[in-house]
Amino acid sequence: MEKFTIDQIKSWDRFYRGNFINSLSGFKSVSLIGTANAAGIPNLAIFSNIVHLGADPALIGFVNRPLEAAPHTLGNIKETKSYTINHIHIGIYQQAHQTSAKYPKDCSEFDVTGLTPAWHSPIHSPFVAESKIRYALQLEEIIPIRQNNTFFVIGAITDVFLDKSLLENDGFIKIDEADSLASLGIDGYYKTEKIDRLPYAKATTV
Amino acid sequence: MEKFTIDQIKSWDRFYRGNFINSLSGFKSVSLIGTANAAGIPNLAIFSNIVHLGADPALIGFVNRPLEAAPHTLGNIKETKSYTINHIHIGIYQQAHQTSAKYPKDCSEFDVTGLTPAWHSPIHSPFVAESKIRYALQLEEIIPIRQNNTFFVIGAITDVFLDKSLLENDGFIKIDEADSLASLGIDGYYKTEKIDRLPYAKATTV
Repeated sequence: MEKFTIDQIKSWDRFYRGNFINSLSGFKSVSLIGTANAAGIPNLAIFSNIVHLGADPALIGFVNRPLEAAPHTLGNIKETKSYTINHIHIGIYQQAHQTSAKYPKDCSEFDVTGLTPAWHSPIHSPFVAESKIRYALQLEEIIPIRQNNTFFVIGAITDVFLDKSLLENDGFIKIDEADSLASLGIDGYYKTEKIDRLPYAKATTV
Repeated sequence: MEKFTIDQIKSWDRFYRGNFINSLSGFKSVSLIGTANAAGIPNLAIFSNIVHLGADPALIGFVNRPLEAAPHTLGNIKETKSYTINHIHIGIYQQAHQTSAKYPKDCSEFDVTGLTPAWHSPIHSPFVAESKIRYALQLEEIIPIRQNNTFFVIGAITDVFLDKSLLENDGFIKIDEADSLASLGIDGYYKTEKIDRLPYAKATTV
């Protein structure tokens, strides 16, 4: 096992370092975030740092890069308080990845990728029609991360759309059966295979 | 496709709702966090909501549940500013899951699960010797999430340990070849299979 110190890591080329640090934190819940500005012009962008914050209230957090790098999603969320999160399956991951390109503000990533916006009134933001598991959120709070000008965005779940056949008897969602992918690093996409669900752990020895 | 509103979801039994909301956010980077208090008594606990915040500086965030539910890891981090994150592979996921049981403060999860602490002086916190990818962090900031009394904990990476054979030529870490797992919900464990790595997306049509 090799040891890498932060001084070594800092000395690396930025792309090498970016790939290394980005993959170190492990597999990620890659999804598409759909928004629209107040005038209804849609935007779609891929995000991979999405976390569960709590079930009651039902809160989800995600990391938004600095505004210079990724302004449109966060701008629309500030304007409308609304966004959708859409799982990415194996049939759409290439189109999903393409949303990470820098398009002008008036250009809809739906148009350029061929993904289809699905509107569910009165929800202001578009969903991705091709996505098999998707949910809408209402902005709760945007927390600036002073260390690197990123943002931790907290939203409350308002509506969830999925096929009932994906549900286990206890509410667990078989997202692997919807072919939802995981990502790794900046550009790696992975399918998954269930090993196990374990019972609630009690304080006795293994 | 079925629609579930938040009012319906709120009406569900808390275990059903917990499984549903926990699995909705997608696959997670499940890992073991190792800490020790100032006296050196080790603690080990499983965490699944870990996100990449940035590569330069190299920052990782994780969500800590409310203090009543999970006091020991955060207490030690506050006391020493030090913690380690250790990937979980298929050979240790049952022991890793067992660390989620509520043990008394003076009881080391290393002892009860049979996982082995690995100390790398001068790093204050223990690593998991069985883990094939592990890294040490220095606390940067603990951000309280007022909506549900959780915490978003930000740390700077100081040292990384892994086998060089896991690295691609461009710094990407093949964590699947170390059998690192993803998790889903509270209790689901998944292995992964790489589908693809995609090139940097440029603003042309797909």
